Amino acid sequence: MPEGRSGGGVSRPNRSTVRIVGTGLIGASIGLALSHKGFRVLLTDPSPTAQALAADLGAGVVADGEPADVILVAAPPDVAAQVVVGQLTRWPNAVVADVASVKERVADDIRSLAEPGHLRRYVGSHPMAGRERSGAVAAQQDLFEGRTWVICPLPESDPEAVEAVHELATATGAAVTTMPAAEHDAAVAVVSHVPQLAASVVAAQLRELPEDAIALSGGGIRDVTRIAASDPMLWTQILAGNAGAVAPVLNRVIDRLTTVAAALAGLAGEASADGSRGAVARLISDGQLGHARIPGKHGAAPTNYATVIVPIPDEPGSFARLFNDVGDAGINLEDLRMEHGVGAMVGLIELSVVPAALDRLREVLEEKGWSVHE
Amino acid sequence: MPEGRSGGGVSRPNRSTVRIVGTGLIGASIGLALSHKGFRVLLTDPSPTAQALAADLGAGVVADGEPADVILVAAPPDVAAQVVVGQLTRWPNAVVADVASVKERVADDIRSLAEPGHLRRYVGSHPMAGRERSGAVAAQQDLFEGRTWVICPLPESDPEAVEAVHELATATGAAVTTMPAAEHDAAVAVVSHVPQLAASVVAAQLRELPEDAIALSGGGIRDVTRIAASDPMLWTQILAGNAGAVAPVLNRVIDRLTTVAAALAGLAGEASADGSRGAVARLISDGQLGHARIPGKHGAAPTNYATVIVPIPDEPGSFARLFNDVGDAGINLEDLRMEHGVGAMVGLIELSVVPAALDRLREVLEEKGWSVHE
Repeated sequence: MPEGRSGGGVSRPNRSTVRIVGTGLIGASIGLALSHKGFRVLLTDPSPTAQALAADLGAGVVADGEPADVILVAAPPDVAAQVVVGQLTRWPNAVVADVASVKERVADDIRSLAEPGHLRRYVGSHPMAGRERSGAVAAQQDLFEGRTWVICPLPESDPEAVEAVHELATATGAAVTTMPAAEHDAAVAVVSHVPQLAASVVAAQLRELPEDAIALSGGGIRDVTRIAASDPMLWTQILAGNAGAVAPVLNRVIDRLTTVAAALAGLAGEASADGSRGAVARLISDGQLGHARIPGKHGAAPTNYATVIVPIPDEPGSFARLFNDVGDAGINLEDLRMEHGVGAMVGLIELSVVPAALDRLREVLEEKGWSVHE
Repeated sequence: MPEGRSGGGVSRPNRSTVRIVGTGLIGASIGLALSHKGFRVLLTDPSPTAQALAADLGAGVVADGEPADVILVAAPPDVAAQVVVGQLTRWPNAVVADVASVKERVADDIRSLAEPGHLRRYVGSHPMAGRERSGAVAAQQDLFEGRTWVICPLPESDPEAVEAVHELATATGAAVTTMPAAEHDAAVAVVSHVPQLAASVVAAQLRELPEDAIALSGGGIRDVTRIAASDPMLWTQILAGNAGAVAPVLNRVIDRLTTVAAALAGLAGEASADGSRGAVARLISDGQLGHARIPGKHGAAPTNYATVIVPIPDEPGSFARLFNDVGDAGINLEDLRMEHGVGAMVGLIELSVVPAALDRLREVLEEKGWSVHE
């Protein structure tokens, strides 16, 4: 038995042994990250092939009978609860967490299936990272780096169990945030599940489109529909599991689109056009305002930064010179963007800093001979 | 008079003089591209500031009284027809083309406003490129490289006029395709205008969301809503101008979402759940199939760069160190992007280089101790 475990109680995390149940994209990526950080990672998957592949990729080792301090269940959402309960029963000393994208439904199912005494060892969680590709083969050690990992403890969850999961999530490079399951589910309905439906419904319109028309697809529809490439089976489980939170948001979306459709019918001459332009403009404008709220670096509102634009020559070393000059002055860049024409003789670099650093940035750059625009 | 013009007729293109009326993002980008290819480009804009800025950036010269062989009208959609007619009248020897995103409405307006004898010198066109940012300051010489440029001649358009516009579009690096205006408008309703509405309506849901919930925004919603940052005034004009084609597509989208909303209500226990999972799965699956039809390269990013992702610590000087290491190796960066993690102490920098430089970039960065991801 690893050190630091006390029979029958919740074990203190001691960076020793973690079991990952389910070695798909998420499970294998967690395994890679934790193995890299020196945890002993045990891998279990109902598919021997998937399990062996994850082990080969360096996500951990296959060691079925060995106990673990913390068990992370990375099973599909529709079986997550059942697998969690199985693990709580089989390993009476282990903390068990799941990583499913919906939290209230999973918690309800666990509460109805598990022995009440086991609930203090369960912690719900959701790492907010994914890819359109699935399976261990798409796993990445840094998949969670800089991403949010939400922890949703039950009221029954032991604080030490929560701490153990917190430690693992942090070790993957994720930023941990804690909130009740219902709050999580309401949030992801808006920022993840309804966007998925919107991407899918836009992409679905392409199915019957003539080839000539599809050829006009540009960057816009590519971005809007990128996540439409995701796995239908997984997403059906996620949407079904969070149906109660998704439905009202989806209904609000339908209502707004219906208003715009009526306005467009008016503008097309099929109905009254009174106020129609206003209805269209309001949606685009509300979208612009909503989009501006998506956080920039460190969750700060993107508008909080001051920005300058610096033209740089299109040649090796010009980035380095610019960032040297900024770095020498001890100024921390909050964001940067490049406007760069292929074949153009200059690129435009947009540098963002906290407003208090703006004057100093401008001064330093001008001193070094850069031309600075705002 | 430039060589090759014949009094009163349509002039043969001779790579001599092009006038651009409207020096915003599209007009100035065309000016940059054509100037670079050796065309003489004259710039006109109702705003003297915008006109001077475009000239300063190298998009062309201001020479108001000088005639041109071809005039490209890059005015907002709601005034495009009127400006085209004005140019047809003022310059009786010039071919006049517009670049508005809607074609049938503009053509109808031109037909009702212009002298019938002038129509043979008009050609409708639409370069399928744009950005969320607007104005000459965001212009790029390579904005059209690899993009589709649609030409929609009127039945009255002189073949030589069509050829002249074709030549200019090709000179910007665009791939030219020709189709009737109605066909163009039906296509962009699906691949551009309805995606814009979907992005805006998803982003609009963020307006009232609590800060904690918005903090869970990940890559998915960022992609889906990127174009929601676009200009409401411009998009109201585009959507109003193509209302007849957009409305039926939008109604199909609403119908599918309504079916899914009913299914989710069933799954949430508010109604019968019979067949509900199937309805959800069908939409996601149709989206996957539709998405797969988007062509790989046509209209994609202007050039295929190879990309690596490098996590950097959030501290002064880390940009400089990274770009020093790249610059010391003599590698020219083609593009860079910074990705933010909420609350993370690292930023992810995406570096793009020509594919031939990828191995060297990876080698150099790893040698210097950077962790490199693909």
